[in-house]
Amino acid sequence: MRTILLLGAGKSSSALINYFLEHAVSENLRLVVADYSEEEAIKKINGHPSAQARKFNIQNENELSSLVSESNIVVSLLPANMHLPVALECLKQKKNLVTASYVSPGMQELDKQVAAEGLIFLNECGLDPGIDHMSAMKIIDDIKMKGGSMLAFRSYTGGLVAPESNDNPWGYKFSWNPKNVILAGQGTARYIENGKYKYIPYNRLFTEIEKVSIDGFDDFDGYANRDSLSYRKIYQLDSIPTMIRGTLRQADFCKAWNVFVKLGLTDDSYEIEDSEHLTYRQLIEAFLPATEASTDIIKRLSDFSGLNTESKEMRMIEWTGILSDKVIGLTRATPANILQNLLEEKWKLRDSDKDMIVMQHRFEYLLGGKKYSLTSSLLVKGENSILTAMSKTVGLPAAIAALQILNNKIKLKGVQIPVHASIYDPVLEALKNFRINFKENLTEIV
Amino acid sequence: MRTILLLGAGKSSSALINYFLEHAVSENLRLVVADYSEEEAIKKINGHPSAQARKFNIQNENELSSLVSESNIVVSLLPANMHLPVALECLKQKKNLVTASYVSPGMQELDKQVAAEGLIFLNECGLDPGIDHMSAMKIIDDIKMKGGSMLAFRSYTGGLVAPESNDNPWGYKFSWNPKNVILAGQGTARYIENGKYKYIPYNRLFTEIEKVSIDGFDDFDGYANRDSLSYRKIYQLDSIPTMIRGTLRQADFCKAWNVFVKLGLTDDSYEIEDSEHLTYRQLIEAFLPATEASTDIIKRLSDFSGLNTESKEMRMIEWTGILSDKVIGLTRATPANILQNLLEEKWKLRDSDKDMIVMQHRFEYLLGGKKYSLTSSLLVKGENSILTAMSKTVGLPAAIAALQILNNKIKLKGVQIPVHASIYDPVLEALKNFRINFKENLTEIV
Repeated sequence: MRTILLLGAGKSSSALINYFLEHAVSENLRLVVADYSEEEAIKKINGHPSAQARKFNIQNENELSSLVSESNIVVSLLPANMHLPVALECLKQKKNLVTASYVSPGMQELDKQVAAEGLIFLNECGLDPGIDHMSAMKIIDDIKMKGGSMLAFRSYTGGLVAPESNDNPWGYKFSWNPKNVILAGQGTARYIENGKYKYIPYNRLFTEIEKVSIDGFDDFDGYANRDSLSYRKIYQLDSIPTMIRGTLRQADFCKAWNVFVKLGLTDDSYEIEDSEHLTYRQLIEAFLPATEASTDIIKRLSDFSGLNTESKEMRMIEWTGILSDKVIGLTRATPANILQNLLEEKWKLRDSDKDMIVMQHRFEYLLGGKKYSLTSSLLVKGENSILTAMSKTVGLPAAIAALQILNNKIKLKGVQIPVHASIYDPVLEALKNFRINFKENLTEIV
Repeated sequence: MRTILLLGAGKSSSALINYFLEHAVSENLRLVVADYSEEEAIKKINGHPSAQARKFNIQNENELSSLVSESNIVVSLLPANMHLPVALECLKQKKNLVTASYVSPGMQELDKQVAAEGLIFLNECGLDPGIDHMSAMKIIDDIKMKGGSMLAFRSYTGGLVAPESNDNPWGYKFSWNPKNVILAGQGTARYIENGKYKYIPYNRLFTEIEKVSIDGFDDFDGYANRDSLSYRKIYQLDSIPTMIRGTLRQADFCKAWNVFVKLGLTDDSYEIEDSEHLTYRQLIEAFLPATEASTDIIKRLSDFSGLNTESKEMRMIEWTGILSDKVIGLTRATPANILQNLLEEKWKLRDSDKDMIVMQHRFEYLLGGKKYSLTSSLLVKGENSILTAMSKTVGLPAAIAALQILNNKIKLKGVQIPVHASIYDPVLEALKNFRINFKENLTEIV
């Protein structure tokens, strides 16, 4: 009997838990699900005989140590900033670790020690990062092996709501950590296009969008992710002239969201005075430039944003309730807290709602004197608000890789991400069983 | 013989050093000036028999401990983030401390211990913070004592270049830490006006300016400082309906500076790729939105900013050299590093240049059924590029207060700022000897 320890029973854990429990008998597995909320863990394992729920607080070193000691491998879906203490405990107890989060500098520092112990700490093995790395590297390695040379790589991913469950003007509902959605893009996005570096600061990020076409859908808006440049090294495309990674939203989302950015509602660094008693409209008025003219909030916001009072974007903003006379009721809240709290209600997945993951890579490359364009697209829909496309695409790669490691099928050691064929081949293959597969479209560029 | 230890011999130290040395004989003082650069310290004491220069590295605990042990009081003009180790050493060795920096949370935590040892750690005793607190509190206390009630407090300060030394279109030269000027305003400014909270995020800070009139000058542009709200408590004006603190710049400065903000040039959080070999023009092109139209940089920047190609603001930007084909030549530089490096050359005070400090408080209050407006203005000019108005207004309050403490004239204990009459009265009185005094103008509001 092998024990898998899952830390974190949040939004992304359902499909991962199901995967292990479906393999419990054939693979001789026992699953321990530990979460800060024992109730949440109990709900997720749903009485399965091979699973056990535990209460767990990352602050409590003894709890962590004891949980790790009874496991053969650890999968952490905890918030990214909690991985390091888990990693240190795994290193101490010589246990392998899988996460779906970016490799932090602290994690990277452990590389040599992890390798020296004959362990693997596999990170970035979810959706984005995760499936994006694996699917891109499979194509890049393939083109390189044929002797091709890469000219451009553009990759966009969106965690959205499926059209059949889309009943709000934003075309968006939360399928993962809402806070990350509110704060997305702060800093400066950087990429390279036709050999020229491009930088877009947050104040312009949602206005400089690219239209992205995917079969069967209206064009999406794509905005650039924080740092596309570092992926040149990670993907071994050091001299590629065009490299852009971005995020997809339904058309018009970015234009309306930019009003929140410009107002200052996404700042998480200070508390709004008297946020408990203020109404949403009063909050917006506090952010609008002083004026002696109209006191009509719609008119003032229209003047401020340059959006027509009758525009779709103005309707989107009104729909959130942020112009209403409702009292905020949150004490000592930052602007970002207030916006998140409001949208968590409005952008909530209802029980039967289906979310949707869309990913598209566009490659351009030279091969045998000819120039090609290859588009590789992924579309995954959720079953409902629990077994979401997000939970499948984040959790299954981590689960599949963890089982591969447990079965000693992956020989790599050290702190790794899934850009190696020995990882991405079996994981991508196994994902096909869950209808997580890419459709490719190759055309010659004339 | 009493020994004063001055830590930091930078831009703000000249007037402070002079003050102590002028009082060396009458007050029986010895001054030790310690700086990371011994050369700088030697230059500043200029062979004076009562002064000694020392090399000093804040990282070296023994050096700090030894310097503190031979002193009777410590004045720190080090960068703000270096005060805490100094404070801890002073606490250990039971020595009083004076700084011109904001009280950090770490410093504030020491309050009880400092008081228990019968010590005073006096912070915010420079210009801004410093003279602003003292001059405002003197008036506020006076009005309150007469039975008046405060309706509004607006206060603006600018460290500028004197008109007679103003030979550039920005009307600005660096008289203190250039990095702070480049990064100024990041975050969200907050204040209260007519009982309504106002919030201005960085992306709009330099567009929502207030015109500030001071006799003998063209109107200045004032932009709001980060957090004006906290001063309601500090100045004991908890229920004042209007409280704004801001920074003054020459007219048009803010509008031109906003182009740098909008481009993204003030970001200090990441490094520009290949910053060493890039030209300034290429850097600006990397920040400008992609376009297939004009390749003329002036035209592109004009389209981007909405400024006419012939406008004063466009000339200001061109004047900096940031559109030139000169190579940047800085390795691994952030956008803010690059902008700072360029402007340090262009906005340098020449030897004979005079800088200028302008401060204006505007109070409105009710007294005896009548409403008054009281304007209190300070104008200080520097002698040259060493004995600057900045060095006088930052250093003299700290020096005067330190001597008061050394002579046991200030009885307050704990972590303090100069909002108490026992501090501001003698300091403001002594500053008059240096022609640092406010002119008041009282009018009844009808």
